[in-house]
Amino acid sequence: MKILIIGAEAAGMSAAAKARRLAPEAQITVLEQSEIVSFGACGLPYFVGGFFDEPGYMAERSVEQFQASGIDLRTGHRVERVDAEAQRVRVRVLASDEQFELEYDRLMIATGASVVRPPIAGLDKERVYFLKTMADGLALRDWVAKPRIQEVVVIGAGYIGLEVVEAMHKQGKRVRLIELADRVLAESFDAEISEQVQAELARQGIAVHLAEAVTELVGEDGVTEVVTDQGRYPADLVVVATGVKPNTDFLADTGIRTLANGALVIDDQGRTSLEQVYAAGDCATVPHRVRQQDVYIPLATTANKLGRMIGENLTGANKRFAGTLGSAAVKVMGIEAGRTGISEREAQQLGWAVKTVVIRDKNTTNYVPDQADILVKLVYDGDSKRILGGQLVGGSGAVLRVDTLAAAIQGEMTTEQLGMLDLCYAPPFARTWDALNVAGNVAK
Amino acid sequence: MKILIIGAEAAGMSAAAKARRLAPEAQITVLEQSEIVSFGACGLPYFVGGFFDEPGYMAERSVEQFQASGIDLRTGHRVERVDAEAQRVRVRVLASDEQFELEYDRLMIATGASVVRPPIAGLDKERVYFLKTMADGLALRDWVAKPRIQEVVVIGAGYIGLEVVEAMHKQGKRVRLIELADRVLAESFDAEISEQVQAELARQGIAVHLAEAVTELVGEDGVTEVVTDQGRYPADLVVVATGVKPNTDFLADTGIRTLANGALVIDDQGRTSLEQVYAAGDCATVPHRVRQQDVYIPLATTANKLGRMIGENLTGANKRFAGTLGSAAVKVMGIEAGRTGISEREAQQLGWAVKTVVIRDKNTTNYVPDQADILVKLVYDGDSKRILGGQLVGGSGAVLRVDTLAAAIQGEMTTEQLGMLDLCYAPPFARTWDALNVAGNVAK
Repeated sequence: MKILIIGAEAAGMSAAAKARRLAPEAQITVLEQSEIVSFGACGLPYFVGGFFDEPGYMAERSVEQFQASGIDLRTGHRVERVDAEAQRVRVRVLASDEQFELEYDRLMIATGASVVRPPIAGLDKERVYFLKTMADGLALRDWVAKPRIQEVVVIGAGYIGLEVVEAMHKQGKRVRLIELADRVLAESFDAEISEQVQAELARQGIAVHLAEAVTELVGEDGVTEVVTDQGRYPADLVVVATGVKPNTDFLADTGIRTLANGALVIDDQGRTSLEQVYAAGDCATVPHRVRQQDVYIPLATTANKLGRMIGENLTGANKRFAGTLGSAAVKVMGIEAGRTGISEREAQQLGWAVKTVVIRDKNTTNYVPDQADILVKLVYDGDSKRILGGQLVGGSGAVLRVDTLAAAIQGEMTTEQLGMLDLCYAPPFARTWDALNVAGNVAK
Repeated sequence: MKILIIGAEAAGMSAAAKARRLAPEAQITVLEQSEIVSFGACGLPYFVGGFFDEPGYMAERSVEQFQASGIDLRTGHRVERVDAEAQRVRVRVLASDEQFELEYDRLMIATGASVVRPPIAGLDKERVYFLKTMADGLALRDWVAKPRIQEVVVIGAGYIGLEVVEAMHKQGKRVRLIELADRVLAESFDAEISEQVQAELARQGIAVHLAEAVTELVGEDGVTEVVTDQGRYPADLVVVATGVKPNTDFLADTGIRTLANGALVIDDQGRTSLEQVYAAGDCATVPHRVRQQDVYIPLATTANKLGRMIGENLTGANKRFAGTLGSAAVKVMGIEAGRTGISEREAQQLGWAVKTVVIRDKNTTNYVPDQADILVKLVYDGDSKRILGGQLVGGSGAVLRVDTLAAAIQGEMTTEQLGMLDLCYAPPFARTWDALNVAGNVAK
């Protein structure tokens, strides 16, 4: 059995490691075009922010560790073509430009995603970064260490953009955040949550520009100014965080089924539309449990889970994925925000008539020091009262409560059942009626 | 409709408030023998520890607030007898010793519990306290403020005992904890969790004596020494926290069904064995969802939830309680511990053949400051893999993860489903595979 995996980040290496354990006799080859494997880009903002100094922390395991486990992992190898009928790929060795062909019985595509280059002039100037690779992180951290870098502009107010804002603020920079949409986190959260995050950014002295389009980055060699449809702002350093797109162009001639953005559509076993070809991670869709659709929500959690499952299925298992809930979280300075299931905005886009409830409560009993506000939003079906989604924002414990909602949604719990759910209480952790109970009880 | 409620703490006042909102025409009377209502004793250790100074924080609402809402709330009124056939109670006004009878259509008993007085000589000496009432809290706090009070002995290592240990430690006292069982939290947690808590107590310099029986408190007027079956220890102040028993002696002649300890057995609608008589809170049992038994687990959360539900049922609804999971939590200095569902010890007592798994993991990604260990124990059915219970102990986020397990147990989730559950990830909140996922995946 020849298993071939293209891409050595979360999904690919999870699959390789799992397959290795399950099928000692299989020949497992992983081809990776870069020199870095098993790298979690989600650590980059924290590295740039100086939360830690050792970049190696961002990789789970080294090339040598994988090879020692019996995985034929080859870096600097780029797959340029897949012949699904012949079950064969064409590989280019980047160092030597040598090419060769490789056969497979089962193929997994885990090539990840690349940054989207938004339509902004001057993106190639010095001191303009997309924060996606280890090289980006190292370079940014060098710049950040220079006292003359004072004005930092972050373009894009998604998860990464907000984490970069915190990182730069922590490093003592003056930070300006510019977002095309009329609120932060507009893709994944509803407006009530965005507003709380915006209020926190304002409290911390971040200049936030919403509904504003960056048109040009100006400067001799390096950027010195950011021009938008509404103004010009000084910039010693620019970080662009405007999303990613799947790395699947090399498959264009295979006829593989994709979404419009190029994401490979997979079924609940991780199979693409091509015989014996699986895919997972930032290059692929994922089945959504609530939406009952194939969605593109590139997250490390899903990449790991589907990678592991495909590792089993590559070796003959028939595991099925229960579906993503799009659970995700972000910490922005003093507050945290998390979401699971569908948002009200998603429901509207789907044309679903849902009900929602928003409550403001506290994360602990009144007399506990550092008690903080948390805001809970539930999205639920008006007839069955089944919970379809939830979002929390606020002080400590907001995000972990989202996990409880994820379990509730998975278990098809109603708002009434949530209202009476037996959650833990002691003064430092919750009120006797946890904020989730309250939200469930208020939902009518 | 005449609704009568005996007892004005969590269960009674939750029921009264809910019934008031639902049935504006009903006559709602609440009789309370003390002068304090809606009081949460769970705040007492925090008050004694000096976490806050205003004792009023421990009461949700005042007598006047309840009366203003149209509830006939009378303090200083003790019910001495219930005639369930005649639907009538005999009441004594404590201030005047006057007696009268009162009729009801529906009665709720919410008389709570009293401290157990363990078989120890000298319990009546000065500077010996049971921490149950506001008066206990005020007196203890006065003593704690005196510099000459240095040696504090806490008897009983349950939730309250451990919270008192933390409170006294925070107030700068030398603290000794003496427990009859061979580990702390022996009633509700398994040994793996107790060990972690004991290690934390040791780290913080608390002298912990396990499997040791206090026999006598010695001293002229006030206590100066605690004598056990193994030694004698200096004591300027003693706090006894050895559990509670239901306040139901006044019902002995009614034939009402109780457990051996006097707890009133109720069904899933809150009804006792007597016609038109409901009960909830620390005086009653509660149906256990996993055990499918009537259990005595006196917790504020359950009292509130059943109180609210009975408030509805008193006014004609037919709500049913889904069952307790015995979810509970405690913070002990630097660590937190929580539990839900059944423990391995409970399973053994029930004669159930269960499987368990214990894993040690981290609460955040490696590079986040203050990353801490968390230990997860799952109890599950070996055949169906259905999760029956869970316990966590460790750093920040251990307890809130128990809430996710509570939702999982309520939804009859399997360990495999937990392993793949879509939980939130961002570096400050979890690893990409949350500790709960890991526990689910390790369970075989």
